This record gives sequence, C-alpha cells and structure tokens, in this order.
Amino acid sequence: MPSKQIYLGVIGVGGVGTAFLQQLSKLPNPPSLVLLARSSQTLLAPAPAYSPAIPAGVDWQTASATPSLTKSGALSPSEIVSYLSSAPGGRSVLVDNTSDPALASAYPQFLKAGISVVTPNKKGFSSDLSLWKDIFASAASGDALVYHESTVGAGLPVISTLRDLVATGDQVTRIEGVFSGTLSFLFNTFAPVSASSGTAAAKWSDVVSQAKDLGYTEPDPRDDLNGMDVARKLTILARIAGLQVQSPESFPIESLIPAELASLPGTAAGIQEFMTRLPEFDGQMAALKEQAEKAGKVVRYVGSIDVAKNEVKVGLQQFDKDSAIAGLKGSDNIISFYTQRYGGNPLIVQGAGAGGEVTAMGVLADLNKVLERL
Amino acid sequence: MPSKQIYLGVIGVGGVGTAFLQQLSKLPNPPSLVLLARSSQTLLAPAPAYSPAIPAGVDWQTASATPSLTKSGALSPSEIVSYLSSAPGGRSVLVDNTSDPALASAYPQFLKAGISVVTPNKKGFSSDLSLWKDIFASAASGDALVYHESTVGAGLPVISTLRDLVATGDQVTRIEGVFSGTLSFLFNTFAPVSASSGTAAAKWSDVVSQAKDLGYTEPDPRDDLNGMDVARKLTILARIAGLQVQSPESFPIESLIPAELASLPGTAAGIQEFMTRLPEFDGQMAALKEQAEKAGKVVRYVGSIDVAKNEVKVGLQQFDKDSAIAGLKGSDNIISFYTQRYGGNPLIVQGAGAGGEVTAMGVLADLNKVLERL
Repeated sequence: MPSKQIYLGVIGVGGVGTAFLQQLSKLPNPPSLVLLARSSQTLLAPAPAYSPAIPAGVDWQTASATPSLTKSGALSPSEIVSYLSSAPGGRSVLVDNTSDPALASAYPQFLKAGISVVTPNKKGFSSDLSLWKDIFASAASGDALVYHESTVGAGLPVISTLRDLVATGDQVTRIEGVFSGTLSFLFNTFAPVSASSGTAAAKWSDVVSQAKDLGYTEPDPRDDLNGMDVARKLTILARIAGLQVQSPESFPIESLIPAELASLPGTAAGIQEFMTRLPEFDGQMAALKEQAEKAGKVVRYVGSIDVAKNEVKVGLQQFDKDSAIAGLKGSDNIISFYTQRYGGNPLIVQGAGAGGEVTAMGVLADLNKVLERL
Repeated sequence: MPSKQIYLGVIGVGGVGTAFLQQLSKLPNPPSLVLLARSSQTLLAPAPAYSPAIPAGVDWQTASATPSLTKSGALSPSEIVSYLSSAPGGRSVLVDNTSDPALASAYPQFLKAGISVVTPNKKGFSSDLSLWKDIFASAASGDALVYHESTVGAGLPVISTLRDLVATGDQVTRIEGVFSGTLSFLFNTFAPVSASSGTAAAKWSDVVSQAKDLGYTEPDPRDDLNGMDVARKLTILARIAGLQVQSPESFPIESLIPAELASLPGTAAGIQEFMTRLPEFDGQMAALKEQAEKAGKVVRYVGSIDVAKNEVKVGLQQFDKDSAIAGLKGSDNIISFYTQRYGGNPLIVQGAGAGGEVTAMGVLADLNKVLERL
C-alpha cells in the first residue's frame, strides 16, 4: 500500500515508554515522532512544518536537550488534539504509554478528530461502560483506529485472538486464566504443584515479602492483592465477548487483603505496617492451601467469564495438579478461551504478561497494524 | 476507513471451503463473491457487471443451480487472474481453500496483478525457497497482500504472533512444538503422562488403527507418519524467523514408517497390508516408550527450530512429564516461542490445530485483515 505521512505523538517515558521508543527506532520506516511528553513537560516538532522531528531512539534526557524542538509544560488533551490534527497532509496516531485515567477519558476527543489511539493503558477500556462505548463510537465517527493489545497479558496475543474469534462468528462460552504476573508468582511459589515432601512449606507473608523485594509487586503490594488489576482485565475481555459490564466494581472480586489491614494508609509507614502484620494471617492462607492439597489440588488466583451466564468473577479457585493453570511457571499468565468451535479443549495463550519490553512489543505491534491500515 | 468494492474468488469446497463459505455469509458486510470453483467446475458472476454475485451462505449444489451465474469448466490460473483483475472499480482477493501445489505456484501471477491471496494451503510457502521469495516479491510489486495464518496450527495465532515478534525486533531463538493433530493424538494415547499402573499399555499399531477409524489420520496413515506435514509447517515458521530453508527435504525428518513398509503402494490393498503388518513393529515403539519411562519422561513427536544454529528438525524426543508438551490433550497442537524478550519461559499457543471450522476461522480472520487494509 502507498504510505502516507504519519505523525506520532507519544505520552509516557516510564519503563514501557522507554522500551517502546527504543523498539520504535529500529523499525525500517518509523513514522515521524512529533510529540513526546512526560508528566509536566512536552517536546514538539516545531509547527507549521512539524519538522525536524524528535530524533529516533534517544531517551528523554537527550530528546529534551535537542535545540530544534519546541518545549512546553504539560499540554491538555485538547491542546494535543489540536497540535496533532494540524499536522500537514497526513494522519496522526497517539501512543499513550501512561496509566493515566484522565488521558484515557479523552480518547474520544482524539478519535473524533481522526487521531488513532494505541495504548497499554487499561483505564479507558475498563472504567465505566459509557466511556468504552464513547471510545468505539468516536473511532467510527472519526474514521480512526483503536488498538489496545497490551491492556491484557502485555504482548501476548489475547485481545487480537478474542476479537478474531468474535469477528468470525465463533461463540465464546468461557474465558478463564491467570491474568496477573504478580499473583501468578505468589501462588506458583506458595503452592507449587510438586512440593517436595520434607521441604518446609513457604509462608504466605514470606512469599509476598520476597515478591516485593524482587520488584514483582506494586510499591504497595495491596494494589496487587486487591484484585482490581485482574478485574480491569476481565472487564475488557468480557466486553469484547459481548457482555455489558458496567464497571470493574460490578462483579465479585475476592480481595487477598485481610479486612483488618485494608484501611492502613498507603503511606510508607502504612505499607510497612501492612508487611509487619501480614504474618498474623499466614494461618488462614495455609488452611486454604491444605484444603486444596487434601483434594489433590492447588489453589490459584484466577479470573473467569461465563458468557452464557453473564457472570464475571475474580478470586481463589482450586485446580487439578495436571491442569495447565496449576502447571504455570514463574510469573507467567495463562488465558484459556473455551468456544463452540474449539470444543472441549480451549485455545490457550501463555507466557510473560508483564514487563517493559514485552508490553512495549505489544504496543509496537499494534502501531504496525495501525500504520498498515491508515 | 471508507470501504471499496471488494471482489472475492474462492477455490475449493471441501471441508475447509464449505465451513469458510458458511462463516463468510455471516459477516456484517461480506465482500462480493464473484467466483467459486471446485476441481472441474467454475461459477462466475456474469461479466461485465460482475453482478449478480454468487448467493451468500449456500453450498456448492445450490450455488451451481443458480441460473444467473456463468458456468464453465476448470479455469487456468491465468484465466482466473484475468477475470478477477477485470472486475469494475475495486480490488480482488483470492481465497485458496485447496491443498493444490499447482494453484499455489501461481500465487505470484495473482499478486503481481494486484490480487491479494488468503489461504490455508501450505504448498506455496513450504516448497522451494524460490517460490516463497517470488510470492513476497510479487506481493510487494503488485501492492497486494498475502495472509496464510491457517498454514500452521489452523486458526491458532501462530503465524501472526511470530510475525509480530520479528517485526518488533525481538530475537526468536527457538521454536518448538507439536504441529500435527494426528501425531499429537497418537502419542498422547500411546504414552500418556498418567498411565494408571495395572492397565494394559496400548500397542502402537492399535493406536494407529484407532486413529484411522476415527478419521484422525489421512486415508493412508503413512501420509501422517512420514512427518512431511510437520516438516512443511516447520519450513514456513523457520523462513519467517529468518532462516533460508531451501525446502522441507533439506533438514532431518524422522519418519515413523518402518523402512520395510515404506515401499508398499498407496492403493487400498497397499494401505491394508501396511495396517496388517504394522503390529510387527510394536516392539520397537514399546522400547522407545520404555526407554523414556525409565528416565521419568514421555516420548513425543515434535518439530524444532534452533535459529542461532540454523537447525530445523522433526522427530521423536523425550519430555519431562510436567512439561507443557507432555501434558497436551487429545489432538491439540502446542507451539512454544523462545525469544530474547520472553526469556526463560516461552510464549505458548495451544489448542486444536486441525479441523474444518477452526481452519476456516483462521482463513476468515485473515480475510478480515485484508479487507481492513485494502
């Protein structure tokens, strides 16, 4: 297809954003990067020519030291829309590498203006159903595209696979899986399939502490243990499968935060107290593990969607030791799609579902698809 | 994106072709089906208007009884190219639902004429390397697209996932898996992970016979046991991963056909004699299984690609009982991608890798992507 001039605006230069810029610079024909923003600063290719562009493959420091660029503070979504849609003779794409709910709620503005959106930011797709509907209606009216593969399972082919199943008329009956790398690691370590007898069983609080030290949890581990991240991913998949999920709070979520510790503040001192008091609850978690053991099973933290019953839930479940979910390794995700065409054995996608490089890869693969279609 | 008039030619009305036509008819905006062909007959929407089109969702019988259509015998590829490229004011797509090597070798003609190709037919992509190169060079020069997801793993996201990994700059180091539904079933049944002690072990010849009776094998089971189907799939994946594989005969393939039975003719009598004499070799297969058992493993028929070593091979290997390959169920395929970004744990895709419905689904999903891009 003949290639048009494509202008790219990228917001966010954290782990994913930095990996994305590196990967982007290695494309054979990268689009012209004309806007790069972090929380309080914005770099722009100077109007009206939108040239020279932001140099490819450089980090934020180097980019912000480039004299040819226009610098400003944080721009509002309207200002970014205005800048991108005024670029001469081409199409624009916004890549949102933040997890900012405010930016996500502005996607409809971008899309109505014909600016396509590519993002790993879950907020736009897992908040109120009205925003979801507004995003896709705006894309249609603005003749723009929305791709968000990395909102579930990072670079794993989850969203694209589900969309293909639905678009070709398969009936998705059930979706089930481990959707959090953190919770995968916690349970694979706490309740491994092949616990060698004689080895001291790991205490739940020790496993959480270990995961925190390895950087596998959020700074406040309760942001993983509350199940909200999993609930947001389930919300997205359920909506693609056709369910009208009002919000990630509209279905049961089993929190792994002991009720007694839920109200501790999110300050450093609060987190410290949470970690100090967590061992008080090791007995409860050990009991859950033993109960599963007695049934010859292991306990895992999963999300599931029953399409026919219109039921979404997130929480602990027991699994046979020879099941794919029980056998998961490290911090891998696994997602099983049960459909009419696939019958008894699901279509399964498995692998790392978090991390800067694989998340950025999902964003870049999406961007490639947008570039092919524009 | 504004939709152009798209003309569709479909060749092949076997299991995959029939399922494809059914699924196609349920698309919200199906393209105009103007050519439908089986081995010796062709139905055409009458030129010069290419209208009325072939009715959607009907089987061959009904289509061929439609009076408004032009009927002819088999058309040559050149004649089909000429018909499709003369359609008024639009773009054309050829869907090849056959396994015909002659049609596959004509893809370059179609592509040079601007006709995109979507197909589950492995022949074009797994024969001589020169044909592979000609196909992709012709697509570029003709500004046409080629999609062939269903050539490996049917509707499973295998080709698309590998292309995304490569296009975003990941280094694929190794690809390994079970690529044949037939051989998956044979070994999952012959050497299950959890063989209950006391149960009589299945004999290899009995398992082959059972698979044949269930219709899981080709009419001549040697067409599965020779490993060529797996070798063709490996050839395709290796080429996408960047290896210059000359042909599916250019690397080692371990055939499961006893040498003594290889030269029996492919006639009904020859197949009968093959099945009758197969039990003579049960001892050899039992020995392989026991050898694996002694190491605490199971034997599986796999294909693997080592990209760094430029090595492709197909044959028997032993696997740990708790590995994903050992735990495969029924006739499922599993494909593991080891890459630099994914690290120690591979990206895994698993599920049914054969069957009319799931193969057709892969073809239709590809067609949707072509329609989005044209």
